[in-house]
Amino acid sequence: MRTVRAEIAYDGSRFFGWQRQDGFHSVQAAVENGLAALHDQVVLIHGSGRTDTGVHALRQVAHWQTDTRLDDGRLRLALNAHLEDGVVVRRLETCRPDFHARFDARAKRYLYVVSTALFRPPFGAQYVHWVPRALDLTNMRAAANVLVGEHDFAAFGNTPTVRRASTVRNVHGIRWIVRRERFALVVQGNGFLYNMVRNIAGTLIDVGIGKLTVDDVRGALLSGRREETGMCAPAGGLYLLRALYGERLFGGRDRGPHGVPGTFQD
Amino acid sequence: MRTVRAEIAYDGSRFFGWQRQDGFHSVQAAVENGLAALHDQVVLIHGSGRTDTGVHALRQVAHWQTDTRLDDGRLRLALNAHLEDGVVVRRLETCRPDFHARFDARAKRYLYVVSTALFRPPFGAQYVHWVPRALDLTNMRAAANVLVGEHDFAAFGNTPTVRRASTVRNVHGIRWIVRRERFALVVQGNGFLYNMVRNIAGTLIDVGIGKLTVDDVRGALLSGRREETGMCAPAGGLYLLRALYGERLFGGRDRGPHGVPGTFQD
Repeated sequence: MRTVRAEIAYDGSRFFGWQRQDGFHSVQAAVENGLAALHDQVVLIHGSGRTDTGVHALRQVAHWQTDTRLDDGRLRLALNAHLEDGVVVRRLETCRPDFHARFDARAKRYLYVVSTALFRPPFGAQYVHWVPRALDLTNMRAAANVLVGEHDFAAFGNTPTVRRASTVRNVHGIRWIVRRERFALVVQGNGFLYNMVRNIAGTLIDVGIGKLTVDDVRGALLSGRREETGMCAPAGGLYLLRALYGERLFGGRDRGPHGVPGTFQD
Repeated sequence: MRTVRAEIAYDGSRFFGWQRQDGFHSVQAAVENGLAALHDQVVLIHGSGRTDTGVHALRQVAHWQTDTRLDDGRLRLALNAHLEDGVVVRRLETCRPDFHARFDARAKRYLYVVSTALFRPPFGAQYVHWVPRALDLTNMRAAANVLVGEHDFAAFGNTPTVRRASTVRNVHGIRWIVRRERFALVVQGNGFLYNMVRNIAGTLIDVGIGKLTVDDVRGALLSGRREETGMCAPAGGLYLLRALYGERLFGGRDRGPHGVPGTFQD
């Protein structure tokens, strides 16, 4: 028996989110089905965290136990041959036996992609958020900088009726990368509240179109009031770039992957 | 009453081809429905030609008559506002009253996109043909050159039981453009037989993987036998780049559009 760690890319528009749920077609179930076909027995996998319906991933990390005699390279090939369209294992390696994709994750890095094209993109509308407006990049960058560091992000989370858990998170870095009419937001933090990245994206877009100011964002961060921030930007623009396990720091140049128009990965 | 000419982009994976057919959702019907909503009356449009289910277009040309009081710019905006996801009017202008998108077309230019990535592209699998093989570009280019000029392309058409019409066509130019693992075939001709571009793409790919030789392609062109050429490559990799009306020559640099990963348009 050994533990393997895999990096998995998926097209969120084809699945009802990462997590296995009865009656819904999830990424986790798709991978577990592929493993079951390969191993002739049930295999459960553990992801670094959930992603919602419509949210994509370039390097979601998952681990599982296996007693297969296939080496890592062959296991990856065989598993990919059993996976359906829209999900692929990009990397797979045997790791230390006690590695845990969720509990060992130190940080997450996300990407949010906006198209400011005059017309709705005819191709891949499910991969970007279309905002046919002029965006003020200077203000969007200033507002993004306000969020860097350890803060109470209550204003950027969902709104639970009872707040049980801490809403303090540490955002390691945020930046906007612009190429022609594509605006890509890359954000890394030690963890994110539910919908936090989409709320940040929506808020920064509101700053870009002049609906909110940089001071409004500063004020919302202090007040913790969700109603002072912008809309929750749609799921299709969001990508989990990777879960980080201490082996990498924020700052490497994110390059555009094939197939995700004008977006960036590491 | 005036005649307008429009350049229309669409995601072929969302439609049952260009042409209106009862019971199927076509691009033509989508545009006509948008125009009907706008004009409060039936408007029929004429495209430069059909595209099959799954085949995309970057600049399909169509014309129609209208008595709207909107100028061209406002008409384009209003029409786009009435169109569903996956189809957009990129350009619209009043043209000479007797312009006909089909009868006046002098040439067509197509693009065929192949991905040779090791793994199936997780995003946008409906926009490329995945061939995880090493392709011999030198041979593919040599075989492509064989096809340039006026030839009987019977071996690259469908196989009608009775040949009524001429299968002679003039291919103005073909070229392969390669960027990392993307191979893009651009081909222009005065007209194409049914499935001809997809048959050319499939045949050149077979040359690329060594299943056919350049001489085989030369032989098939002479024999006119469909069984001597390669498979019909899948529809998802094919894009109608534009219909040409004498105003442009082959040779301009094709640039990559947003949203079609690694592909090229003019």
